Amino acid sequence: MAGTTSVTTSRHGLALRVESRLERCQEIHFARDVLGTDNPLVAECLGGRDALVVFSPSIDRFYGRRIRTYFAAQRPDASTEFMVLARTEESKTIDAALSVAERACTAGLSRTSPIVAIGGGVCSDICGVAAALYRRGTPHVNIPTTLIGLVDAGIGTKNAVNHAGRKSCLGSFHPPEHVILDGGFLATLPRRSIAGGFAEIIKLATVSDRALFDVLTDHAATALRSKFREPEWAASKMIDMAVRGMIDQLAENLFEIRDYRRKVDFGHTFSPYFETASHHTLSHGEAVAIDIALSAEIAARVGLVTGHELEAILSLIEAVGLALVWPGTSVCDLWRSLQSIVEHRNGDLHLVVPSSIGNCEYLELGALSPQVLDSCLERLAHRPRSHCGRRRAG
Amino acid sequence: MAGTTSVTTSRHGLALRVESRLERCQEIHFARDVLGTDNPLVAECLGGRDALVVFSPSIDRFYGRRIRTYFAAQRPDASTEFMVLARTEESKTIDAALSVAERACTAGLSRTSPIVAIGGGVCSDICGVAAALYRRGTPHVNIPTTLIGLVDAGIGTKNAVNHAGRKSCLGSFHPPEHVILDGGFLATLPRRSIAGGFAEIIKLATVSDRALFDVLTDHAATALRSKFREPEWAASKMIDMAVRGMIDQLAENLFEIRDYRRKVDFGHTFSPYFETASHHTLSHGEAVAIDIALSAEIAARVGLVTGHELEAILSLIEAVGLALVWPGTSVCDLWRSLQSIVEHRNGDLHLVVPSSIGNCEYLELGALSPQVLDSCLERLAHRPRSHCGRRRAG
Repeated sequence: MAGTTSVTTSRHGLALRVESRLERCQEIHFARDVLGTDNPLVAECLGGRDALVVFSPSIDRFYGRRIRTYFAAQRPDASTEFMVLARTEESKTIDAALSVAERACTAGLSRTSPIVAIGGGVCSDICGVAAALYRRGTPHVNIPTTLIGLVDAGIGTKNAVNHAGRKSCLGSFHPPEHVILDGGFLATLPRRSIAGGFAEIIKLATVSDRALFDVLTDHAATALRSKFREPEWAASKMIDMAVRGMIDQLAENLFEIRDYRRKVDFGHTFSPYFETASHHTLSHGEAVAIDIALSAEIAARVGLVTGHELEAILSLIEAVGLALVWPGTSVCDLWRSLQSIVEHRNGDLHLVVPSSIGNCEYLELGALSPQVLDSCLERLAHRPRSHCGRRRAG
Repeated sequence: MAGTTSVTTSRHGLALRVESRLERCQEIHFARDVLGTDNPLVAECLGGRDALVVFSPSIDRFYGRRIRTYFAAQRPDASTEFMVLARTEESKTIDAALSVAERACTAGLSRTSPIVAIGGGVCSDICGVAAALYRRGTPHVNIPTTLIGLVDAGIGTKNAVNHAGRKSCLGSFHPPEHVILDGGFLATLPRRSIAGGFAEIIKLATVSDRALFDVLTDHAATALRSKFREPEWAASKMIDMAVRGMIDQLAENLFEIRDYRRKVDFGHTFSPYFETASHHTLSHGEAVAIDIALSAEIAARVGLVTGHELEAILSLIEAVGLALVWPGTSVCDLWRSLQSIVEHRNGDLHLVVPSSIGNCEYLELGALSPQVLDSCLERLAHRPRSHCGRRRAG
């Protein structure tokens, strides 16, 4: 936070120029057993400030008692308000964010008191938007409880809700003050949710981290089966590497002011179409996996990855129980969705595709056509080993 | 915009620290006849970008045709969408901001396309909140058409709407990219609106600019009568000095991160009570004037201003047709409103009061009591020359 002013004159007359700089600091803690009544981490992050703690009904079912006990034990002198918020991706709306802000208002939260989200990406998005708006910005703290939250949605600087039929139409860049990562929450997650989270880790590994890709190839299936309890070192390592990789990528362009060329957008060009067209029967992670498969197939077609590398990527997706194709795909609609992206990006597509494993290139619309998409989708659908993917799809 | 990351270890284990810096630039142009079809300023500020231009029904009545003609003439190649938005302070709601964002969405506005507010403080607040939210932040441009907009509401970094019964409950610090100031719009304003705007100029002059106070003393009444057409030099000078003074004050603490000690809060401690208690029959500026009078009376009581200085302040308020008291005042409720401010500011009140003319001091709750407020209000109500004020009040 700072501002400088200068007075300039142009041919239109006098002008004042005010330059401002808003500085933020976000701390990401790697932790264990954060709800243990003898673990002061969460309480120390909140300090003596009042707080509003928001979580979903399923978190309430599994952890509600421990959460309440924790805050009572660790913060006897500060006021902690609890709010159970039932939301899904489809109801990730501004109304949900407003209901959190209203609760903050009723609880009398000051401008420096944090809103704490314990949950998945939907919960952190809603709470992030609420925190950005409430009294022009109150701090927020994320405690992700899903794999996608741990490695992606919970650690970034941006939040959004859907509006007017448009995904992430409204939101803000309002970095969380603290993010507290505890893989222990994964033990109570449905396997399908963990699989979806793996899509984001595979995304990152494929375009930016060969070493992580190798760890995934060797251990992802076991970690999925054991819900990140086994092999312990590999489970920790995957989260650790994914978080660091994600932060390294985001840090270069935290407010997305530069351009649209971002490695972390791999898997996120076709996926909004799949999510929407499937009426959210495909989760975000499942749609990302299908996008990764299609993008990798395109990369192979233009010679950026070998058949062997393509096989490694597709096999990894299948190894964590994710589909490579969605049988409901309309090539026409998929192509139209690309055209609409290009329109919104002033003519740029910047489709991220792998270039060998651990690197990437950006393709523009001219490199693609409905025919190319169709033939890539065909190859994926009729891939000898893709039966597992096809069976789960749709 | 930039980010740096560092890895630290604490007694709780490993932590990643992400520091980010968001840089903004706001240009404030002093201009004339900005809707003249040969004046390229507004068009140049927008560049070739599409834009959504929002204004009130009254602006539409007086300037609608000129606005549409201007954009057609100066921006033949860019798409300009127009939206007429009927709002008052009471309906300055998140729904209004959402309706602007929805229109931006329908118009297909990209993340770099600006939302332009032509109007008073309510219009710029609503559009500012819409711009902050739409696609996580799109630029906005303010063309204030009221005196309060020109010298205060339109030039700051912050925007807000009322929610859950709380004034400015939701909002953001999202500085406008350009502010275009043209005093010519004042010619079509009701005199009461201009008088309200004077309250903000008197506020600034009283606590930070003795020279501006003297210009006001000599010329404010004439400027009010002539709607800023006469005396021309003094009318320009008042706006110019007020804007520069305001920006100098704001620039020190643009995002209000430091503390609550801000000179520009003079006149804004009691005024929310007056606005709310009068059910907005008092305008913002009228409430600010009453706050200034009370704060000055308190300052005289504790010896910070002389009787002569107090008289100069009160006479200036009356000279622009503003009241010094509101007959509906409940001392009890006024006192309670102070206590609630103190609660929200962690025990601080920081009531700004003049200390001679052109300087200020901050008083805390301990320096006040219901009895002190009551006796100050009594003195104001029975002041020999306050008949003009009392007649207008309520």
